[in-house]
Amino acid sequence: SVFIVQRADCLSVYDMGGEQISSIGRGICVLLGISLEDTHKELEHMVRKILNLRVFEDESGKHWSKSVMDKQYEVLCVSQFTLQCILKGNKPDYHMAMPAEQAESFYNNFLEQLKKAYKPELIKDGKFGAYMQVNIQNDGPVTIELESPAATMDPKQLTKLEKQQQRKEKTRTKVPSESSRERNAPRNKDDPSASSGAEGDVSSEREP
Amino acid sequence: SVFIVQRADCLSVYDMGGEQISSIGRGICVLLGISLEDTHKELEHMVRKILNLRVFEDESGKHWSKSVMDKQYEVLCVSQFTLQCILKGNKPDYHMAMPAEQAESFYNNFLEQLKKAYKPELIKDGKFGAYMQVNIQNDGPVTIELESPAATMDPKQLTKLEKQQQRKEKTRTKVPSESSRERNAPRNKDDPSASSGAEGDVSSEREP
Repeated sequence: SVFIVQRADCLSVYDMGGEQISSIGRGICVLLGISLEDTHKELEHMVRKILNLRVFEDESGKHWSKSVMDKQYEVLCVSQFTLQCILKGNKPDYHMAMPAEQAESFYNNFLEQLKKAYKPELIKDGKFGAYMQVNIQNDGPVTIELESPAATMDPKQLTKLEKQQQRKEKTRTKVPSESSRERNAPRNKDDPSASSGAEGDVSSEREP
Repeated sequence: SVFIVQRADCLSVYDMGGEQISSIGRGICVLLGISLEDTHKELEHMVRKILNLRVFEDESGKHWSKSVMDKQYEVLCVSQFTLQCILKGNKPDYHMAMPAEQAESFYNNFLEQLKKAYKPELIKDGKFGAYMQVNIQNDGPVTIELESPAATMDPKQLTKLEKQQQRKEKTRTKVPSESSRERNAPRNKDDPSASSGAEGDVSSEREP
């Protein structure tokens, strides 16, 4: 999965009719792109990462020292399958995104875990799969991309960021390599089970 | 480099005093995270990618069919070094971001290229290195992450996205592998030339 965390002074989400779905004051916006390969375990790991990510300053003004949880700020989550985009020429393709029906239960589970690990009343969300307007006042701006550990298990899929992370953590944990070898098998892009989900996601309900 | 493209219904950028720096109507917000390893050539490649990225619908309502250029919409760019974040535990670290002095000329060059490839009056920007509030009405929402081709040259640094892209393009272009081998050498994280830049970027001017 790919997460985009944006630090917000205020943030609100509206439906097509212009009605407010939810809103927060100071806190973080979490845009959540669930991939076909995600597991619940990976998302649970991300819950901890997000709640503990130090994007706020402390009382003395020292930057990058306090998390949303430290500050008791709010979190607003929005499912964002476009983060799983693969470009076919100039056209975004979403075959790597988890099909909507399946992604919805992952998304709900993610929200539940967030509420459990923090405070339910400080976790808000949009409306899964709906076309929305997300109004954010990005403070800084601060935009941070996080990827779930699944991507780090296959050395060939490592991004620079994750490689450094792994290098650093090597002494602490052993990274599984054998079990994830299969991930590297070429994916059949015409696989109907994969494409149907992406199509479902790119439905008129979802899109403007 | 890492780019975050967000589709916007409207977008404005304010300075610390609440004064508007710039704004656009319908178009895209481009958050631009320049890495230590970027070259001007890579950023020029990204100019084309961004201007041609199909994130808008056509007249018949067909999604993902028109680019910002097709629609003659606006582009607002904001430099965002936090996209080069590496997590040290829960604390963001920005040693991979290009030092501010150097990044500013890359950023300005990127803007120049955008204006040259499109229309100067449709390209707006924030204020490099300044603390700002970015107010975006993200339409959809649509958030797409793009990485510059540098990352794709080393097979070990490929993200899933780029690997698929590369697989698809393999028949058309040959990917250099030998020349980019060096990139893989472990970076000395205590390298003062790298850290000074990141520190500069995380200065009081830049941060809230």
